[in-house]
Amino acid sequence: MGLEPESTVVGFIGTGVMGGSMAERLLRAGFRLLVHNRTPGRAQPLLAAGAGWREDPGAVAAESDIVLTMLGYPQDVAEVYAGTGGLLESARPGTYLVDMTTSKPSLAERIWRDAHGRGLHALDAPVSGGASGAREARLSIMVGGEPADFEVVRPLLERLGPRVVLQGGPGAGQHAKLCNQIALASAMVGVCEALAYARRTGLEPARVLQSMEAGAAASWALSHHGPRMLAGDFEAGFYVKHFLKDMGIALESAEEMELDLPGLELARMLYQQVEEMGLGNAGTQALFALWDDEEDDDPPPELVQLGRR
Amino acid sequence: MGLEPESTVVGFIGTGVMGGSMAERLLRAGFRLLVHNRTPGRAQPLLAAGAGWREDPGAVAAESDIVLTMLGYPQDVAEVYAGTGGLLESARPGTYLVDMTTSKPSLAERIWRDAHGRGLHALDAPVSGGASGAREARLSIMVGGEPADFEVVRPLLERLGPRVVLQGGPGAGQHAKLCNQIALASAMVGVCEALAYARRTGLEPARVLQSMEAGAAASWALSHHGPRMLAGDFEAGFYVKHFLKDMGIALESAEEMELDLPGLELARMLYQQVEEMGLGNAGTQALFALWDDEEDDDPPPELVQLGRR
Repeated sequence: MGLEPESTVVGFIGTGVMGGSMAERLLRAGFRLLVHNRTPGRAQPLLAAGAGWREDPGAVAAESDIVLTMLGYPQDVAEVYAGTGGLLESARPGTYLVDMTTSKPSLAERIWRDAHGRGLHALDAPVSGGASGAREARLSIMVGGEPADFEVVRPLLERLGPRVVLQGGPGAGQHAKLCNQIALASAMVGVCEALAYARRTGLEPARVLQSMEAGAAASWALSHHGPRMLAGDFEAGFYVKHFLKDMGIALESAEEMELDLPGLELARMLYQQVEEMGLGNAGTQALFALWDDEEDDDPPPELVQLGRR
Repeated sequence: MGLEPESTVVGFIGTGVMGGSMAERLLRAGFRLLVHNRTPGRAQPLLAAGAGWREDPGAVAAESDIVLTMLGYPQDVAEVYAGTGGLLESARPGTYLVDMTTSKPSLAERIWRDAHGRGLHALDAPVSGGASGAREARLSIMVGGEPADFEVVRPLLERLGPRVVLQGGPGAGQHAKLCNQIALASAMVGVCEALAYARRTGLEPARVLQSMEAGAAASWALSHHGPRMLAGDFEAGFYVKHFLKDMGIALESAEEMELDLPGLELARMLYQQVEEMGLGNAGTQALFALWDDEEDDDPPPELVQLGRR
């Protein structure tokens, strides 16, 4: 069975910053789309573009051939999948359930087992690439699940990003995504410290960025977040609060494996300080606020605004 | 005055892993090349390719229009420039002296002042991009000095890498390079921890790399060092001991400015552990040895070999 746009109903639950852009891509590709979001207002642009609204996740699942979920926290995932009127209870046998939230590997395994027992196909498929990656269909998608299920959903996922890799069985997509977050966390610390040093020493930080982008310090984090940090633009592509969630899951999992991750521990501690500054709803580039000398006396409007949310 | 290959004698002091490749580029571009290296054997390939040997830095400088230096530590730079029979004493007025070593900004300023007083043109121009960047002329070159001097040497430097940026006055190239090393240090920690997590959790690390390279964790450090870490290939492009030197300079400078760089402090502590394992002469990717489970009982040949150097 192929999931061709003309004959496939796609359910999409969680139409926030990331999910909204991803759902829009699928809608534009010609899929029939049914959506649900905890905050209905955020689904409005999709409805205006032709998506159908359903009052709860179960109602979406009951009419869909494949349901994609892009939620906030593992507890949201557990609720949407396993709760009363949830996806597992409401989906018709044979339906594909793909959780693209960054969540716990053990939860992904549990969902897979429950789904399997009901004749459903579950996969975990978290993504990386930020809000711009979602908008421009340049996400990296890390999948865990059964190879046969992967082959069915792969063409649809490839519409959201060119690199869709099966990392292993159920939960493996989540583990791979945690690896991604582990590398990213320390990279973000490095970018902040480099720019803080540049600014403090009187260099023109934008010019230093130019040099760094062409050498061994080049990174997505540097090119994507560096200019925003310097501009004091902390608008969220990816929330501080969600990054903290990811780091917490990774550290918990590492602890279970007796694996020391001091860089990740440090990054989490620093991001916790950012959250305590009231910046949990800012983008991850707000880490720079910890080093931003110029905030000391007179915080820029963005900071104040985000702090008040 | 332009530094055209056919009419310019280039002196090159320090023909190690980086300097050797850079000097070879200039030789192949048609410059007449005079070289000196503390360990003469390492200059042999250049001599075989047509470079001239001189017994000391001063003898190189006395016959050169421009002298490039690529040394190990600030004390080496101080000695080669300011020592008896050094570059400052021996160069003819009007000569360009370009230090491409990663060294102390304050030393670069001091050399510039001394050079200026003698009618010499000094610039600091450290590079980033590793051994492969040097071999393939893809270095990022960060320059500090006077704009007029920069314009004279720029075309020559552009033969070593496409991005040559004047970062400011004397010492600014060094400060920019320290920014680069600050970002890189934490990035390396993140790459190691991500791959260690991948391996420990039973994923195929090479496949995780594939996914990470396409998302927000993408970096030069990941793509360049990740595969080497996984292969246990710790051959030096850039030495652990030199990276430690750079981190030390950056931390000292940060301390003077009362700037906290906890990520850099952590990275230095971890790299110090690597050096204590006997891996100071390994490449910076040897940081992964701290997490490499498989080394515990049976170190691979590379590790043992490097440890014995």
